[in-house]
Amino acid sequence: MTAKDSQTPGPGHLMAAEITQQPEVLANQLVGSTGPIREVARQLREANPRFVVLAARGTSDHAALYVKYLMEVRLGLPCGMASPSTLVGYHAQLRLDDVLWLAVSQSGASPDLVESTEVARRRGALTLAVTNAPDSALASVADLHIDVQAGRELSVAATKTYTAQLQAMWLLVDAWRGGDGLAAAKVAPAMRHMLSSAEAVDDLAVRYRFMHRIVTVGRGYSYPTAREGALKLMETSYLAAHAFSGADLLHGPMAMIGQDCPVVVIAPPGVGGQLLRPVLARLEERRADTCLVGDAALAGDYHFTNCVPVASIDETLSPIVQIVPLQQLALRIALARGVDPDRPRGLSKVTETL
Amino acid sequence: MTAKDSQTPGPGHLMAAEITQQPEVLANQLVGSTGPIREVARQLREANPRFVVLAARGTSDHAALYVKYLMEVRLGLPCGMASPSTLVGYHAQLRLDDVLWLAVSQSGASPDLVESTEVARRRGALTLAVTNAPDSALASVADLHIDVQAGRELSVAATKTYTAQLQAMWLLVDAWRGGDGLAAAKVAPAMRHMLSSAEAVDDLAVRYRFMHRIVTVGRGYSYPTAREGALKLMETSYLAAHAFSGADLLHGPMAMIGQDCPVVVIAPPGVGGQLLRPVLARLEERRADTCLVGDAALAGDYHFTNCVPVASIDETLSPIVQIVPLQQLALRIALARGVDPDRPRGLSKVTETL
Repeated sequence: MTAKDSQTPGPGHLMAAEITQQPEVLANQLVGSTGPIREVARQLREANPRFVVLAARGTSDHAALYVKYLMEVRLGLPCGMASPSTLVGYHAQLRLDDVLWLAVSQSGASPDLVESTEVARRRGALTLAVTNAPDSALASVADLHIDVQAGRELSVAATKTYTAQLQAMWLLVDAWRGGDGLAAAKVAPAMRHMLSSAEAVDDLAVRYRFMHRIVTVGRGYSYPTAREGALKLMETSYLAAHAFSGADLLHGPMAMIGQDCPVVVIAPPGVGGQLLRPVLARLEERRADTCLVGDAALAGDYHFTNCVPVASIDETLSPIVQIVPLQQLALRIALARGVDPDRPRGLSKVTETL
Repeated sequence: MTAKDSQTPGPGHLMAAEITQQPEVLANQLVGSTGPIREVARQLREANPRFVVLAARGTSDHAALYVKYLMEVRLGLPCGMASPSTLVGYHAQLRLDDVLWLAVSQSGASPDLVESTEVARRRGALTLAVTNAPDSALASVADLHIDVQAGRELSVAATKTYTAQLQAMWLLVDAWRGGDGLAAAKVAPAMRHMLSSAEAVDDLAVRYRFMHRIVTVGRGYSYPTAREGALKLMETSYLAAHAFSGADLLHGPMAMIGQDCPVVVIAPPGVGGQLLRPVLARLEERRADTCLVGDAALAGDYHFTNCVPVASIDETLSPIVQIVPLQQLALRIALARGVDPDRPRGLSKVTETL
C-alpha cells in the first residue's frame, strides 16, 4: 500500500484507505475492547458450552471459520458452521441447550442472521453476536455482544472489519483459556510492515493483470485466508477466484489446475505450513504458476514462481496479517481492469437474505 | 444418457456406464442394505448423541453436507463439518463424548479420514463409517459401518457411489426417526425417467460448449447438489465451476456474475425452492444466462434462459435425482472438449491426504 493509494480520490480510494487504517484499528481495539471482551470470555467460561455453532455470511463467514479453528484447537470445543436455512426456512427443531451460538456480522443487519439468532436463543442456545454495529438488530437480540470497533466501513469490499473480527475473536479465545492477550500486540506492527513493503504485491498485480481465473489454497489457520482472498478478488475484480483447502484440492479440483491458472498458496508459519508440503509438491509436479504467501524458504523448497514474504508471527495470529497482501492484490487488479472496488456491480453494503 | 454413451468404448465410457447404473444400484440397495441400515439406526437412537460431526472429502463431503441438512431438519440434531486438520495436524484435544462422528468415504482409504476417525473414537465419539468398501481401513476403525453397496466404481469421477451414499443416509435418518422408508422406492424410477429424457441436457451441453466458467447455485437441500455438480465439471472438464448457496451468492459473489458466465440454479421442490425466489429475481435483474434444474414453472416465473425439468419428488429425496443432469452435463462437456472424464489429469481414484 503506497501513500498514493489512500490519497487519490476516485475508484478504490475507500478500500485503499480502509486497508491502510487496519494497524490503527487493531491497536485501538486492544486498548478499547480488551476489557469488554475479557468480560464476555468470563461469562462463556462460566456457561461452559459443549458445542459451538457459528453463523455468518460472506466475509464474516471467513472470520467464523477462523474462530472454528481457534476454538477447536485451543479450547477443545467442537464447532460447526450453521446452515441458517435449516432454522429459519425448514424450521428445524434443533436442540441447542449447552450450545454457544456465535453470530458474526459487520452490519448486524442481515435479516436471516437476526432471525436465526433469535430462534437459536429460544431453542436454548447461549447467543453471542460479534458485530461492528453495537446498535444493530443482531446485537440487541443476542445474550452477549462484542463490538469489534473498526470504525465505519464505507467500501462495499470489507477489509478492516474482517481483521478487527479476527483479532477480537483471538482475544476472546485467549481470555477464555486464561491467557494474558499480550501476543496480540505484535499484530499491528507486523501489519504496518506488510503495508509499507508491497513490492511483491505490485509485481503480482502486473503478472495477474490478464488472468481469467485464479485458485487460492490454504490449510488449517490459513484456509479462512484463502477463502477471504478469493472472495475479495471475486467481488472487486469479477474474477473466477476459487479457494480450496489443501486437502480438498487433491480430491478433484487439482485436475482444473493447468499452466493457465495461477495458484496462490497461503502458508501459515507453523503446523499448517507443514501440512501443506504434500500440496506444494503436487503443484510443483503440475508445473503450475504458483505464488506463496508466507515463508520465503518454503516457497524456495518447491520452486514457487513468486513469493509474498510475510514475517513470522504466532500461527494463531498469522491470518490477521496474511490477508493484507490479498486485499492489496484485489484492489490493484480491480483498478488495473477499470473496476471500482468500492462499488462492485450488483452489491450493496448490507445484504438482505431471507 | 443415451444408449450410445454407455456402449461406446473410449473416453468417458466408464463414467457413462456408471451414471446409467444408478437406478439399479439404488433399487438393489433398498433390497440389500435396508436391514443393516435400520440396525445401525437403532443403535444410534439408543446412543442418543447430542451433536454430529461429519468428516469427508471431495464428493463424499457433499454427501456429508446432505446429511447435515437431513439430520438438522428431521432429527433436530445440530451438525458440524469436521476440519480433520484440527485433530490430526494440530492435535486438538476435542471433547467428543455425546458426539456422533460420521465419516463418509467411497474408498474408506483416505489416511487423514482413517486417522481422524481413530482419534475421534479415542476422544469419546461414537464413530460411524459410510463407505463403498466394507474391507477398508475406515470401516474397520469405526464402531459402526454402513456399506452403500454401489458395486465397484471405475471412473475417477464418482457418480453412483455418491447417489448410493445419499440414499443410504436418507434411509438411516428415516429409520432413526421411526419411518418406514417406503418413500425411497420412488427414487430409482424417477432417476430412470431422468436418464431416458436427456434432451435438455444435450441442448445445454451445446450452449455451454465454449464457456470459460460456470456458477452453480442451490439452497437448503439442493446446496450439496450445486457443490457436487461444480466439482464434477471441475474434475472432468477442467472448468472454473463455482458453487454457492443462494444466500451467500448475494454477499459478494453476485458481482462476478455477468452475461459471460452461465448460472445453473438447482431448485428443490419444497421450501428450498421458495427460499431461492429472491435469488432468482436478482439473477433475472442482472440478465444472467440462467438454467434452472427443477420445476419448469419456477423457471418461467423468472424468465430463465433454460430449464432441465425434474419431476417432483419429496424434497428430502430430491438431491438423489437432481444431481443426474449435472453428471450428464459434465460427461458431455468433457467429451466435447476432448477430455477423458474417466481419467482426469492429476487425479487418481483414491486420494491420500495427510
